[in-house]
Amino acid sequence: MSLRLTILGCHSATPRVNAFPTSQYLEINDRHFIIDCGEGAQRQMRKYKVGFSKINHIFISHLHGDHFYGLVGLLSTFGILNREKELHVFGPKGIKEATEMLLKISQSHSKFELIFHELASKKSELIFEDDKVYVHTIPLNHRVYTNGYLFKEKEKLKKLHIQKIENYSIDKADFLNIKAGRDVVLESGEIIPNDELTLVPEKPKIFAYCSDTSFFPSIIPIIEGADLLYHEATFLSDKEDLAEKTLHSTAAQAATIAKQANVKNLVLGHYSGRYKDIQLFKNEAEIIFKNTSLAEPGIIFEV
Amino acid sequence: MSLRLTILGCHSATPRVNAFPTSQYLEINDRHFIIDCGEGAQRQMRKYKVGFSKINHIFISHLHGDHFYGLVGLLSTFGILNREKELHVFGPKGIKEATEMLLKISQSHSKFELIFHELASKKSELIFEDDKVYVHTIPLNHRVYTNGYLFKEKEKLKKLHIQKIENYSIDKADFLNIKAGRDVVLESGEIIPNDELTLVPEKPKIFAYCSDTSFFPSIIPIIEGADLLYHEATFLSDKEDLAEKTLHSTAAQAATIAKQANVKNLVLGHYSGRYKDIQLFKNEAEIIFKNTSLAEPGIIFEV
Repeated sequence: MSLRLTILGCHSATPRVNAFPTSQYLEINDRHFIIDCGEGAQRQMRKYKVGFSKINHIFISHLHGDHFYGLVGLLSTFGILNREKELHVFGPKGIKEATEMLLKISQSHSKFELIFHELASKKSELIFEDDKVYVHTIPLNHRVYTNGYLFKEKEKLKKLHIQKIENYSIDKADFLNIKAGRDVVLESGEIIPNDELTLVPEKPKIFAYCSDTSFFPSIIPIIEGADLLYHEATFLSDKEDLAEKTLHSTAAQAATIAKQANVKNLVLGHYSGRYKDIQLFKNEAEIIFKNTSLAEPGIIFEV
Repeated sequence: MSLRLTILGCHSATPRVNAFPTSQYLEINDRHFIIDCGEGAQRQMRKYKVGFSKINHIFISHLHGDHFYGLVGLLSTFGILNREKELHVFGPKGIKEATEMLLKISQSHSKFELIFHELASKKSELIFEDDKVYVHTIPLNHRVYTNGYLFKEKEKLKKLHIQKIENYSIDKADFLNIKAGRDVVLESGEIIPNDELTLVPEKPKIFAYCSDTSFFPSIIPIIEGADLLYHEATFLSDKEDLAEKTLHSTAAQAATIAKQANVKNLVLGHYSGRYKDIQLFKNEAEIIFKNTSLAEPGIIFEV
């Protein structure tokens, strides 16, 4: 497993007893990210045993309350927990002023440095990179400035083919070079080609997060071939007019995007409270795209 | 029943799976108030079936996150629910700017008028009055500017003593005058004293809300004789030094206030997460003040 997504909340608009606004916890190649932070996200993190100290990066898609009102409480809790590591928050322009003002008025003191990365571009851009992953924005089409996020593992090192390696007298000090793709020169001068000593590494995994947005085919080239796509489906097709008006998507539209982008798996969420049976979203999407699942609080998707 | 308090949340600082920050729903003399609004308050309101449309007044004690971060989500939800009635919010100076800025950045549109009443006085003052209740502030002693609130029913009209009234030929049009305390002059000219026609009305009920505060005897004259006192008890006496340092109270201190103020019932809350067994708070307080109860989410206190 190198990609694991835990749904913390996946309902639209107002919290209800068993409906939680959007928030997700993504583990990808040993990185740990929170994506969106609706009210109560920190409680859901506790409930589903997300380690608070593992989180160093939070990505906010847009500043509607159901994606954002839980951020300040989480940051405040980090302060109470005596966090010292810096924390990075990515989100639309304006997020810094609003959050800092709230923390100030609440006199939330903290030792850690809070670093905002404010986004304003309407084109996809690389906003984060380390030795494990890349994160790009996915510009979406909603009533306010909104980005989805594309999380992609970096190319992994090759795996050692231990049985083959044991055929030769190879020093362990060379293992990293072999993983990096180099051939080995034995003491005898014999050259062992790298391919003989290694297994092909796993293909880098990709997770695409798209919420909130109208049906917006411009995203297809960005999310092409993703292993896992989370795409909002606020409505069913019976309310396609309402989806268009509010710049949300239907389940069928989400499935169409998944199909056209050749993703491997689709997860739906952000269901409007008007639908009592979310199974209807799966039924509608599956007609167009078979590998469809439903987000529900606490559900984990592993790739 | 003329006074009913529903605990929505009663734990300090950070939300946990089964711990909710402070919020209460008070019904007093047909008025419906929310007191404090920690993160997730609106979800707790749903859970305990508080009618959103009944709420016209919200009282915030102070701007620490665990009493305040749920306000904007609740206001935003009122907008989504198409509320049209004006809504009054009472709280420390600064609450208006912070809340309006957040609503603006989230583009939360609403039809209703949101009226802030910002408080800055360090003396108890009458901040709300209608034909049913008075609300006074209770200046508290905490790390930031903080008010408790005293909710008091207005004197009620006398009740009609129906059997006695039926002895005379009294027009129903006179009933309101009788309830207001007036004598009745019969057509014969005979005067029937009011006392003969009425029963003594119930004594006006009083609820005092005191959170967060250090041990602060200055509040005693204000809350004297209250039917119900909610007083924070963040610590037990083993942490009296920490209570003093953080300007919170111990259970014993809350009980001492209750005893010295001659209140009828004490409810404790705002327990620190370090205590696994909240029964210890009751045990400690009862030694000093017998009629002590523990706040827990969903518990209702009726007077």
